[in-house]
Amino acid sequence: MSYNTFGHMFRVTTWGESHGPAIGCVIDGCPPRIPLDVSDIQPWLDRRRPGQSKFTTQRQEADQVEILSGVFEGQTTGTPISLLIRNTDQRSRDYGDIATRYRPGHADVAYDTKYGIRDYRGGGRSSARETAMRVAAGAVARKVLGAGVRIRGAMVQVGPHGIDRAQLDWDLVNANPLFCPDAQALPVWEDYLADIRKKGSSIGAVIEVVAEGVPPGLGAPIYGKLDSDLAMALMSINAVKGVEIGEGFAAASLTGEENADPMRMEDGRLRFASNHAGGVLGGISTGQPLVARFAVKPTSSILTPVPSVTREGENVDVMTKGRHDPCVGIRAVPVGEAMIACVLADHLLRHRGQVGS
Amino acid sequence: MSYNTFGHMFRVTTWGESHGPAIGCVIDGCPPRIPLDVSDIQPWLDRRRPGQSKFTTQRQEADQVEILSGVFEGQTTGTPISLLIRNTDQRSRDYGDIATRYRPGHADVAYDTKYGIRDYRGGGRSSARETAMRVAAGAVARKVLGAGVRIRGAMVQVGPHGIDRAQLDWDLVNANPLFCPDAQALPVWEDYLADIRKKGSSIGAVIEVVAEGVPPGLGAPIYGKLDSDLAMALMSINAVKGVEIGEGFAAASLTGEENADPMRMEDGRLRFASNHAGGVLGGISTGQPLVARFAVKPTSSILTPVPSVTREGENVDVMTKGRHDPCVGIRAVPVGEAMIACVLADHLLRHRGQVGS
Amino acid sequence: MSYNTFGHMFRVTTWGESHGPAIGCVIDGCPPRIPLDVSDIQPWLDRRRPGQSKFTTQRQEADQVEILSGVFEGQTTGTPISLLIRNTDQRSRDYGDIATRYRPGHADVAYDTKYGIRDYRGGGRSSARETAMRVAAGAVARKVLGAGVRIRGAMVQVGPHGIDRAQLDWDLVNANPLFCPDAQALPVWEDYLADIRKKGSSIGAVIEVVAEGVPPGLGAPIYGKLDSDLAMALMSINAVKGVEIGEGFAAASLTGEENADPMRMEDGRLRFASNHAGGVLGGISTGQPLVARFAVKPTSSILTPVPSVTREGENVDVMTKGRHDPCVGIRAVPVGEAMIACVLADHLLRHRGQVGS
Amino acid sequence: MSYNTFGHMFRVTTWGESHGPAIGCVIDGCPPRIPLDVSDIQPWLDRRRPGQSKFTTQRQEADQVEILSGVFEGQTTGTPISLLIRNTDQRSRDYGDIATRYRPGHADVAYDTKYGIRDYRGGGRSSARETAMRVAAGAVARKVLGAGVRIRGAMVQVGPHGIDRAQLDWDLVNANPLFCPDAQALPVWEDYLADIRKKGSSIGAVIEVVAEGVPPGLGAPIYGKLDSDLAMALMSINAVKGVEIGEGFAAASLTGEENADPMRMEDGRLRFASNHAGGVLGGISTGQPLVARFAVKPTSSILTPVPSVTREGENVDVMTKGRHDPCVGIRAVPVGEAMIACVLADHLLRHRGQVGS
Repeated sequence: MSYNTFGHMFRVTTWGESHGPAIGCVIDGCPPRIPLDVSDIQPWLDRRRPGQSKFTTQRQEADQVEILSGVFEGQTTGTPISLLIRNTDQRSRDYGDIATRYRPGHADVAYDTKYGIRDYRGGGRSSARETAMRVAAGAVARKVLGAGVRIRGAMVQVGPHGIDRAQLDWDLVNANPLFCPDAQALPVWEDYLADIRKKGSSIGAVIEVVAEGVPPGLGAPIYGKLDSDLAMALMSINAVKGVEIGEGFAAASLTGEENADPMRMEDGRLRFASNHAGGVLGGISTGQPLVARFAVKPTSSILTPVPSVTREGENVDVMTKGRHDPCVGIRAVPVGEAMIACVLADHLLRHRGQVGS
Repeated sequence: MSYNTFGHMFRVTTWGESHGPAIGCVIDGCPPRIPLDVSDIQPWLDRRRPGQSKFTTQRQEADQVEILSGVFEGQTTGTPISLLIRNTDQRSRDYGDIATRYRPGHADVAYDTKYGIRDYRGGGRSSARETAMRVAAGAVARKVLGAGVRIRGAMVQVGPHGIDRAQLDWDLVNANPLFCPDAQALPVWEDYLADIRKKGSSIGAVIEVVAEGVPPGLGAPIYGKLDSDLAMALMSINAVKGVEIGEGFAAASLTGEENADPMRMEDGRLRFASNHAGGVLGGISTGQPLVARFAVKPTSSILTPVPSVTREGENVDVMTKGRHDPCVGIRAVPVGEAMIACVLADHLLRHRGQVGS
Repeated sequence: MSYNTFGHMFRVTTWGESHGPAIGCVIDGCPPRIPLDVSDIQPWLDRRRPGQSKFTTQRQEADQVEILSGVFEGQTTGTPISLLIRNTDQRSRDYGDIATRYRPGHADVAYDTKYGIRDYRGGGRSSARETAMRVAAGAVARKVLGAGVRIRGAMVQVGPHGIDRAQLDWDLVNANPLFCPDAQALPVWEDYLADIRKKGSSIGAVIEVVAEGVPPGLGAPIYGKLDSDLAMALMSINAVKGVEIGEGFAAASLTGEENADPMRMEDGRLRFASNHAGGVLGGISTGQPLVARFAVKPTSSILTPVPSVTREGENVDVMTKGRHDPCVGIRAVPVGEAMIACVLADHLLRHRGQVGS
Repeated sequence: MSYNTFGHMFRVTTWGESHGPAIGCVIDGCPPRIPLDVSDIQPWLDRRRPGQSKFTTQRQEADQVEILSGVFEGQTTGTPISLLIRNTDQRSRDYGDIATRYRPGHADVAYDTKYGIRDYRGGGRSSARETAMRVAAGAVARKVLGAGVRIRGAMVQVGPHGIDRAQLDWDLVNANPLFCPDAQALPVWEDYLADIRKKGSSIGAVIEVVAEGVPPGLGAPIYGKLDSDLAMALMSINAVKGVEIGEGFAAASLTGEENADPMRMEDGRLRFASNHAGGVLGGISTGQPLVARFAVKPTSSILTPVPSVTREGENVDVMTKGRHDPCVGIRAVPVGEAMIACVLADHLLRHRGQVGS
């Protein structure tokens, strides 16, 4: 069962609500003797932290992570690693509205229908705040994978505006708050998003994550396929509505000839002439770069009133004032990277368990 | 761990290779006292069975299912249900070629790299033959869900040819071998696929599955979300490269206003004015129709030779003669339905466990 | 996988080392809308807390539990419940000895062999301190089970001294620091343990836990049997070396006639004339009181030097000064109760999931 | 969830009823390239098979195992291994009695209470016939463990008659149908059991299993301890009521001095002077022999009528004619060995996964 846990050997359990005293996670199954301290985790959290540009919510959280267990004298011990972040920006504001009025497109009505109760403060458990712990766990997963595996994500589409793949520049990604990899697209996106923000509207996005250096052989058929686990992991991120690997949906329009990845031996090593498959065959990594994309919907928190209902069954119109996130896809970039890191770390251990190194 | 098992409370474990003596599955956790016999399962298998039109492989398998346990006097007993299908079409042909030459785009090279061994006969474990057991398990899942839940799939795109949603006719789907829901698209697809077949080529497809009557409240945040489990389940089907829920990737281009699903109370019941979300909010079903789509790549088994390598590391060119499947997406329709049935049955029991009826 | 998690639907993950900043647990899958606050948990922790009599270690911990998530306005929300206890008695003492010299009978050498590293301070992860979180989780499990299920434990043997079952008085158990249920045995045990303590020795014990009001039907054959899950849970408690249900090992000497539990209908209800089975048949609860016993070994922390080795492979003799626990079985009583509560809560939800209420 | 599955990386799922067409199991997660054919499994099944002496039930089953998947050209492939045994001794007898009258001490009443239905023929799912598949899986587990690990079981007590440990002779065990390791005890047991059988009575037993050559480091604290997994596995065997490791319940009467296992370096290797711990410290194997014992109750199938009830709630007296098993503990010996083999294989892979070889 996995309500709030994912992974099998590298297992991550997260807990916490947006406006409770803290959020946290427990990482179980981490190999021992891996150097780890807060400085390995904090930079990734800083990268995800909101409030760093006008394009993300102005919520201000220090997001300072503490390691409470599982590390001794700077090394993992093989026992569970407990990470904790205190919630410091819990404004003592009136939650009366959100308590009874279901925000359209949010999980409010679904939680209430399922559980008969919900912590409505700031979205409670369904808040994107939970993704901070995914990023923290992903930082640990990167240490498990080692320096040979490089996982990088970028936004590749914002609303109607995609990138020109000929311009793709990974170095640019961390140099702009939109994780944009295309120098020509960047100013277009900035203008577009500024306009969206001004209007109190919101817009969707597509994120691409590429993992290089993934050893071949990871992934376990039939129901532990690497790509199905990636799909699960990415689809579990807030607001994600689609996931694809390699050519993804574009493969539907291709012929077998167009979609083939020819193989050749070169210098005694297997080489692929192309990577339509996105690094996975039969659910198993091939050694090629792993390529995954996911679509993030526009947040429903907009200034335009949308018809909704209250907990008591009255019709109301709901609009969202205050903190505003014109494109929640932006912050999904580091989260997507982290989820892929966690899935890969899990499969690395699973493969080693069944097959040996 | 879940190498060959999926689900948590309604658990399906499949086993078997394409050309071994049999394939089978074990369904564990099925509720007791559900009427079940072979006639509940066989029709779904017949629907998936290849060789029924010129558009699918000409492999001839009776696919006659046997129930070996878990059913007594026509009812499930709560103990594991073992289902078995004998492989009857194991031609005593020479597998010399496939044994050593890796078929591009297939799992051959990946299995060998991972395990150092593979049953190469007919693709072994990675053959789509395994999906017969998914369909069988899905038939049992439908019984668990009851008549109130209706799960229907259709092909909605073949290569470049989509459907006109205004023409969507579910009744048509089972009346043609392409699971096409659009009477005007059907002849276009038939001509197109006949041509693909004649050329020894192959083409991709998109399948849509809709589940109506799903009770609200299914799905468990954060890592047991209904949509992430669906993504995992659909991505695990052979040749699937993308999965989306509701608007899916199209949501990336929408604004919050466009993507909103307004809510209103009508006759004391919550109604949504639209279903961009595809029936899921925050990972929990809302009671709206569940809408999922998945993309299937073109099979790499084509007549055009593609550069490849042998097990011993020699360069070769591989082409696939014999049985030919111009569009493996066709047979994925009943498989997709079955996977969704299994995920829903699992979540029905999980929800009942945690929350009660 | 379950390194630090137990349970399936009511899942408990614990973390933390004896001398780290804190210990904690995450309870996942708890049903919603169960009234819960710290006052439901703290009394059980107080009951387990060491230092309350001369018969347990003098370590002084407030063991004040905090609820960090999963509870809103006094009720569980169905999301993960995070509990945390700060470690307040981390004396800044020199751990030089214990760091390099393996305490015989402790996990020191085993952890180092397995992981190549261990947090040696106070036993680290292998310390009985971890059991505080089991007791906390057990308190939540009791709330899930409701008032109709009563779980009570007692010491029934200390070294050579058993109890007279004719004298068994449950009211006495909580009125003495030894959880002794026999007024005549109590002074004998006190004298005996005072002597053990004076000598710097230690002694084993047997604990019995009885759960009344357990609904019939809990437990899932074949590998989810109620009694096998109880055996797992009890054997996982520090220092436990044996577990038995009902007659347990005594059943080996009984004939079928002696061990039979005759059944009769009385007032329309099924009654058993005896309870040799201990409340379980075929792994499923029968509605009779569940009776489990477990044996706790004497701690190896004694004043007598015992031959041992160092991390570097030198022979040494190790004796344990300082805090002293003459009978670790005493504190195992509330822990055993808690584990049984957790297993029962888990099976209650599992049963409801598969079979319905 | 684990209704009918046990293990995490080496996972065994069993299915089948005593009088259905077949029983079987699926072994998932087995490492690839292990030589395996029927001759590796059949001898262990033959050893368990009933009807080989007058001391076990006269049911005659060939218990001929078939390998249906997961093995190719004499080697495991890493994919699921499906094993099947046909039930050949399904006498077409009248089950009227057993269908409605609950056999005391059997699972009949428990299954009906839980599920509202049961396959009553020969005990259905709760029959000891299921243990054949445990033995088959155990045979595969032994191959995973390799020749360096030796797992041997023996009966060490039958009713009131124990063995003299000074006489313990492992070679004798397989040379007599009682798995008795003591040449002087053997004739006593034979006479005693002949008498029990003549009277239509039954008697309990204690079985001991010793595993030598277990690598140190297996077992994962805190809830994946080797000894708790062993306890779960052994307690899940039909009729088992108690499990102990090393000194077990005897440890309750020992002092810390008596129970200590002194350690010394000898020839550069760690040696223990004794093995009170039974090969496990802190839930982790130490390299010493693993010693487990379990108690088996006397079967309730006896000639003496015992008060019981019918499905419809009428009082009846039930006696068992026909096939008779005076001591079900006998056949539990190979089953206990098999369960320990499976647990060790699982932990070998789990350890390798987390820590590496």
